[in-house]
Amino acid sequence: MHTYIIRVRGFHLDLYGHVNNARYLEFLEEARWDLLEADRGLDWWHEQGLAFLVASITINYRRPAGLGVDLEIRSSMRRLGGRSAVLRQEVVNLATDEVVADADVTFVVICQETGRPVALDGALREAFGGDPA
Amino acid sequence: MHTYIIRVRGFHLDLYGHVNNARYLEFLEEARWDLLEADRGLDWWHEQGLAFLVASITINYRRPAGLGVDLEIRSSMRRLGGRSAVLRQEVVNLATDEVVADADVTFVVICQETGRPVALDGALREAFGGDPA
Amino acid sequence: MHTYIIRVRGFHLDLYGHVNNARYLEFLEEARWDLLEADRGLDWWHEQGLAFLVASITINYRRPAGLGVDLEIRSSMRRLGGRSAVLRQEVVNLATDEVVADADVTFVVICQETGRPVALDGALREAFGGDPA
Amino acid sequence: MHTYIIRVRGFHLDLYGHVNNARYLEFLEEARWDLLEADRGLDWWHEQGLAFLVASITINYRRPAGLGVDLEIRSSMRRLGGRSAVLRQEVVNLATDEVVADADVTFVVICQETGRPVALDGALREAFGGDPA
Repeated sequence: MHTYIIRVRGFHLDLYGHVNNARYLEFLEEARWDLLEADRGLDWWHEQGLAFLVASITINYRRPAGLGVDLEIRSSMRRLGGRSAVLRQEVVNLATDEVVADADVTFVVICQETGRPVALDGALREAFGGDPA
Repeated sequence: MHTYIIRVRGFHLDLYGHVNNARYLEFLEEARWDLLEADRGLDWWHEQGLAFLVASITINYRRPAGLGVDLEIRSSMRRLGGRSAVLRQEVVNLATDEVVADADVTFVVICQETGRPVALDGALREAFGGDPA
Repeated sequence: MHTYIIRVRGFHLDLYGHVNNARYLEFLEEARWDLLEADRGLDWWHEQGLAFLVASITINYRRPAGLGVDLEIRSSMRRLGGRSAVLRQEVVNLATDEVVADADVTFVVICQETGRPVALDGALREAFGGDPA
Repeated sequence: MHTYIIRVRGFHLDLYGHVNNARYLEFLEEARWDLLEADRGLDWWHEQGLAFLVASITINYRRPAGLGVDLEIRSSMRRLGGRSAVLRQEVVNLATDEVVADADVTFVVICQETGRPVALDGALREAFGGDPA
């Protein structure tokens, strides 16, 4: 499991003093960038001519989160298919240990030249924690 | 069905020249604010002490959308339950008539004083296109 | 003078119920995209291989603006130099006719191939309301 | 001088692959929240019934910053007046040690009850690095 902490700032909040719905998607994306860096690094992706593309997101907003709270984003692979995969991302309030939001992020990896999804095998499958084909 | 048009601007785009994932959630929210205004108006909600609260969103990113494109957000009630409801929102590229993204937005209406969901009946049910209880 | 209206939505607001500081820069940018479209159109800029680049912004936050307010962004050229220019942008609350914020936006036009500023003469000078050289 | 590091992520970028203009204002604000926390903490401000209010910002965009770069925001008090002050904030690319952007942020401190600026003396003046009155 990959973890990444983001502290809630004033500009993250809506008029109720809670983190705004759209902002959570940025938090999840920030954690995914860190995950990619922590593994092979962004250069590897660039050299391979590959890009990570989000196909769909299901996000549940479970509890509000306010100013100054540290949110830990916990990411783990939920399902690793042949050409698409689902990353599970939970946002946990570190002060209360409660889940604030959770999301299933379905993604594909595309070849930047063709724009088409590639098979998730070999080094790519390994990068996502699966066995190499 | 409620419709609302947003033109894609430079600051909506990511480095691939496509509308950013998180930004679509702002587009959907903008359309929902317009929908609430077009119906009873925001004052009605305020006077009733009620607030619209998103519980979960499932969004599918189907095609990229680039600079200058007019996106029409088409919103219609998909399911109207006793205490929660699902609004269907499609984002259509008006130049090509293709669906760029679609989303199911599950929401509740909360009483601002208690913070708890209220029953979707009476004027509230009518506001969402259902028959008054 | 070019005018453009933006209605304040919930996701524009901070926890005090006022439009967030950073968001005003998006409002100003949205008005500038509309201004460029209303003049020669974005295709013209693309065909010429030119891009609009902001060098500096001075923005004064004069009054708060809340939910549902219509803000009119009024843009006019303040100074048109040889290689840089200053666009004046005022944000006016249409309900009260008060200035909510005003900004001086200094920009250059760069050649996309070289990345360097070009002289603001000929068709470009005309586009910004000056006499063609 | 207060320092704070932000790594540039994909969703910070515009279609040229550079950090978006409006996003810099969020970076500056994030550093200011950290500065307030590092000093008396947010609770102190809340207990005193005081709030930090930005009156104007002058920002110069000097160089582009791209994906994966670590930006250090360096904040120091530039001018400490009787009722307003100017914080200088520089954004430095840590890989090249070049200034990417710099800003002068003029602010006041308001009493949350009255909404009016208070004198920057006593503990408040000390908090901003000045001598207590």
